[in-house]
Amino acid sequence: MIKVVLLGYGNVNSHLLKNFHKSREVEVFQVFSRHIPEEYPSYGAVDFVHSLSDIDSADVYLMGIADDAIGSFSAGLPFEGKLVVHTSGAVALKTLSDKNRRGVFYPLQTFSKHREVNFTDIPIFIEAENAKDLELLRKLGNSISTVVQEISSEKRKKLHLAAVFVNNFVNYLYQMGADILAKENISFDALKPLIMETAAKITDLSPQQAQTGPAKRRDIKTIENHLELLPEGPFRQIYSKFTQQIAGEDIFLNHKR
Amino acid sequence: MIKVVLLGYGNVNSHLLKNFHKSREVEVFQVFSRHIPEEYPSYGAVDFVHSLSDIDSADVYLMGIADDAIGSFSAGLPFEGKLVVHTSGAVALKTLSDKNRRGVFYPLQTFSKHREVNFTDIPIFIEAENAKDLELLRKLGNSISTVVQEISSEKRKKLHLAAVFVNNFVNYLYQMGADILAKENISFDALKPLIMETAAKITDLSPQQAQTGPAKRRDIKTIENHLELLPEGPFRQIYSKFTQQIAGEDIFLNHKR
Repeated sequence: MIKVVLLGYGNVNSHLLKNFHKSREVEVFQVFSRHIPEEYPSYGAVDFVHSLSDIDSADVYLMGIADDAIGSFSAGLPFEGKLVVHTSGAVALKTLSDKNRRGVFYPLQTFSKHREVNFTDIPIFIEAENAKDLELLRKLGNSISTVVQEISSEKRKKLHLAAVFVNNFVNYLYQMGADILAKENISFDALKPLIMETAAKITDLSPQQAQTGPAKRRDIKTIENHLELLPEGPFRQIYSKFTQQIAGEDIFLNHKR
Repeated sequence: MIKVVLLGYGNVNSHLLKNFHKSREVEVFQVFSRHIPEEYPSYGAVDFVHSLSDIDSADVYLMGIADDAIGSFSAGLPFEGKLVVHTSGAVALKTLSDKNRRGVFYPLQTFSKHREVNFTDIPIFIEAENAKDLELLRKLGNSISTVVQEISSEKRKKLHLAAVFVNNFVNYLYQMGADILAKENISFDALKPLIMETAAKITDLSPQQAQTGPAKRRDIKTIENHLELLPEGPFRQIYSKFTQQIAGEDIFLNHKR
């Protein structure tokens, strides 16, 4: 049984708590949270503590706190020599204070308060300073997911950058689509089946194989019709940029943009 | 029973054939295709014909052919006064030859050869020149989908433009994510659960509510770390543009870009 204390109770740790609770190999017996959470979970015998001095001894401490607080928070912990790991994609292992053994436990997913997430398929990327700690993190990961992989801080940064493209920026394109429809009084619901299928497609096909549309076909007539609908500004800039990326830089040669 | 002839046998029409076949209100009895299709479907008594002169009389002719061929193809049909509709998002109704009654039957989805598509939730946007034809197209749409809506050619163009943002451009962002991982020898599979959840999230939340990430948080430290990973070029340009759109134009004031 791996004894776990969660430090912080935001999106990541609340989802981790829910999922560790289903595992027989992991016991989360304490959660440190400065504030009493709005919704108090009732998972077994989890104890919520609000003072650092109340934290008990555990095999691993999982920090789910804001990226820019990871360094100072880890330095302020009132114990030493324990395994303390953060759950961030963007923060290097060495940002953690070295008074404890350091590690990373990064589940690559977007977490929201009110959406259930099944961890089984979520890749968890781990990092540690020695083989024993890495083994423990691997066991911890395998207790909730089938995809646990060691990765360096440097590579994890790239992974996080890729995640920004396929999550943050993709979501912003959804927003742009919603904005275009809102001006026409068309419900955003009209785009939802397309959005789901666009995502589902790349489980079968590579993004390269899945690419379709006027830019891919170099259909300059449709592209020009679209540009006529877009006034000068960010929508037009993003449209032109993606079209050039997909069709080739030369797509606008001899054509008004 | 609505008697249908399909003109062309590409992605859209092959999926329509499959789905109309499940309906008791629609009979597709003929498909016109210049070439004998690779995979011959065996749906009831569908007759494949390869010459325009073999096309028989139907209640509606559904054209599933390339956007830029719609005008000339419709003008070349050897009959008059019939209901001829195209299935394109980007082409105006009036592009069709007026020797037949004109209409549009636009299913808003991305179709691929080897992926089954369930039409039930796919919105179908219809347009016609008179109430009776519109009624027929509505019945035809309702035979396979629960979401059938009348829309003008002008509005349909905007819908198609929005679809380009949430499908073509989103897929290109998937490709960019895949490219970043490929350089690190990390499998694109690592991003798939995130991609699916990003799409699934907006069934519950608006894109605005679903927006997360360093740009949304105005986390300039992470943004600068990301920019350091991106050499001058399209990846960096797209990263900067989206970051400004999400965070606000001023995010890069007093910061190197």
